[in-house]
Amino acid sequence: MSQKISTESYKGVRDFYPKDMFVLNYIFEVWKNTVKSFGYEEYNASILEPAELYKAKSGEEIVNEQTYTFIDRGEREVTIRPEMTPTVARMIAAQVKELPFPARWFSIPNLFRYEKPQKGRLREHWQLNVDFFGVESNNADAEIIKIAYTIMKNFGAKEEDFIIKLNSRKLIKDLYNYFSLNEEISYKLSKIIDKKDKISEDIFINSVEELIGEKSTDFVRLLSSNEILLNTLGNENKNVEDLVILIEILEASGIKNIKFDPTLMRGFDYYTGTVFEVFDTSPENNRSVFGGGRYDDLLDIFGTQKVPAIGFGAGDVTTRDFLEAHDLLPEYYPSSHLYIGTVKEEFIGNAEYLASALRAEGINVTVNLTNKKIGDQIKIALKQHIPYFLAVGDDEIKSDSYTIKHLQSETENKVSISGIVELIKKTE
Amino acid sequence: MSQKISTESYKGVRDFYPKDMFVLNYIFEVWKNTVKSFGYEEYNASILEPAELYKAKSGEEIVNEQTYTFIDRGEREVTIRPEMTPTVARMIAAQVKELPFPARWFSIPNLFRYEKPQKGRLREHWQLNVDFFGVESNNADAEIIKIAYTIMKNFGAKEEDFIIKLNSRKLIKDLYNYFSLNEEISYKLSKIIDKKDKISEDIFINSVEELIGEKSTDFVRLLSSNEILLNTLGNENKNVEDLVILIEILEASGIKNIKFDPTLMRGFDYYTGTVFEVFDTSPENNRSVFGGGRYDDLLDIFGTQKVPAIGFGAGDVTTRDFLEAHDLLPEYYPSSHLYIGTVKEEFIGNAEYLASALRAEGINVTVNLTNKKIGDQIKIALKQHIPYFLAVGDDEIKSDSYTIKHLQSETENKVSISGIVELIKKTE
Repeated sequence: MSQKISTESYKGVRDFYPKDMFVLNYIFEVWKNTVKSFGYEEYNASILEPAELYKAKSGEEIVNEQTYTFIDRGEREVTIRPEMTPTVARMIAAQVKELPFPARWFSIPNLFRYEKPQKGRLREHWQLNVDFFGVESNNADAEIIKIAYTIMKNFGAKEEDFIIKLNSRKLIKDLYNYFSLNEEISYKLSKIIDKKDKISEDIFINSVEELIGEKSTDFVRLLSSNEILLNTLGNENKNVEDLVILIEILEASGIKNIKFDPTLMRGFDYYTGTVFEVFDTSPENNRSVFGGGRYDDLLDIFGTQKVPAIGFGAGDVTTRDFLEAHDLLPEYYPSSHLYIGTVKEEFIGNAEYLASALRAEGINVTVNLTNKKIGDQIKIALKQHIPYFLAVGDDEIKSDSYTIKHLQSETENKVSISGIVELIKKTE
Repeated sequence: MSQKISTESYKGVRDFYPKDMFVLNYIFEVWKNTVKSFGYEEYNASILEPAELYKAKSGEEIVNEQTYTFIDRGEREVTIRPEMTPTVARMIAAQVKELPFPARWFSIPNLFRYEKPQKGRLREHWQLNVDFFGVESNNADAEIIKIAYTIMKNFGAKEEDFIIKLNSRKLIKDLYNYFSLNEEISYKLSKIIDKKDKISEDIFINSVEELIGEKSTDFVRLLSSNEILLNTLGNENKNVEDLVILIEILEASGIKNIKFDPTLMRGFDYYTGTVFEVFDTSPENNRSVFGGGRYDDLLDIFGTQKVPAIGFGAGDVTTRDFLEAHDLLPEYYPSSHLYIGTVKEEFIGNAEYLASALRAEGINVTVNLTNKKIGDQIKIALKQHIPYFLAVGDDEIKSDSYTIKHLQSETENKVSISGIVELIKKTE
């Protein structure tokens, strides 16, 4: 017992002190308010899932290789969830006969991945998951993308701060068919295209050539011009038509910063149609903020009826990076609106009395319980960023007259209890 | 891949479908609003902690025996947290020099225990943790107990629905000293007293007698009468005095349903002073709802300066049981205020236009994207408990005139967009 225990958290996860929690809560609040405005309902599940849930799915490699999986005391193989989509698919499948469809659902789970420790790569992060089950149409795709757009706007982002890249897995399949590529080659080609932005132009072209030989020149040409690509596949092509309609719907609802990008792949193999990604346009943070796509076949693994689905996941770390890059983070403020100081310890009862009256009016109040002097009490309030301060002594309660001070601006007001409530509610 | 995956969750944890999540969110909201009204700031941490954090602490047996502990890929021993107090103690210790004290903190973490599956015993639950660091006084104890009381009141509980039992570890220590019991005997005796309510009177008396012999008659007599017990220890006893003052402070602030109970022990060994528990008084659910206590020495394990602390943890399961027993759970309502139906699919654009205008005014709107008939769209809205419905056809947008229906009462109103906003905000 004399051995000291470390105060460090587990490797790759974060402690959220009140100021960090304030930012996290701000992000959660914008997410929640936005998705609720579109009628989405919140669900949740445990962070522990049977390991088989992730093994079955033909998912991203890292899901199987980089999860936290262990055997419990009952010999069950358990995984700490690395993503939420298999969980929500499981829940929908479990009650597919009882639930009213279409179902619009959201959740803000924490997710774990066993990442090699490196900058910006955390083992745990929080992620908004938004999913729309039961409708397979351009309008459903448009709604999900519109929510992604509205989230960015509600964070205060301007149109030029971000761009929404859009692609269709079906259209890319048509492209592979056009070049008569088999499934294996197509899969490998997708993985190369997915890395395009991270490698040089030369390496990209060489990799494609290595894989598909002389077809590579034409293939790269199509990939680099949307016009030529769409013309080649033809306007009568259903998937081209769908993409054009989707873009028209989005533009009609005022979303102009949207762009078809045939090189947008997205990691998960379960996507079946539309895929999209919100990209930060700032030079310092020029990367994906979040994205998602349509996955109409995922529920098949549970053997239940088919349920078309589209959704996305937005992480707290990339969102915070975006907000910082664009100076969109709000200034910290604490829960407490008012610090009631006490001239002497014997006035704590009076302070408590006043505090109770104010709490009943919706004011959050900290009562001084230290035996420090008034000056030091003010210092505590300042350090804790509490905006207002007043001291209770002999006469204040009796006369219902308090000198309330706004600490930052150093302005003072002499007010009654109702005056305190009014003043604080006005500036809140 | 043809093998079907089970849709069941991991054993002993819960899926929160929207209606369950509604209840959980309601509980979270009352907790949050109450503790914030007392100026408490939210923090959080990862669910994964180094296993040594729980081994060091002279804690409850089950913490060591019933945790989820595993070895990660980097050979680190990791525990999924079974309680939050060691985590918050670690965080406070890590920044003990920078943080402004007193620190009033809260968090709503999920906690895991490897319980044998049985009714009401879950492996995961959510828990409000409220802690006050940096003041060792009756006023600090009173504030924490007052918060516990206010939470119950804010849930709608009446004074007669619950009682707050109070004890002092220091006073019980004096009692053991009075009977000249050594530390080992005292420890064992505490464990017997802790079980008192779960065993018969005879078994209790026999167990005490087995442990302390002929002293047992006097001991049990003192334990069964507060008056005799307090008189025996004497009014000049500092711990008796503290207890009396604490009860006086609480009574002065209007808390009458409070009772000194020398048999109240609480499981954790780290408590050093006041301990308390909120008990349900209903015959059907006559048990502890939640509780806490003072733990002034816990930070010693980190080798930092001493920080006095008092706090409590309130679980979502026992809270929900209490609310159900007293019929205090609110009726479910969804995020969405209004379902906009579409007479034909071509009017979806119109519906989206109206929805955007309403969302900008703070109304949560679901737009119909199905190709079902209006009657079936109303059925979906009803199943999803959405209160209002209106259908958009050819003329509504042009004339800014909508027939909005309150589905439950079947009342209709003909209104403009601003009329919709007004109507919904009024009934929200």
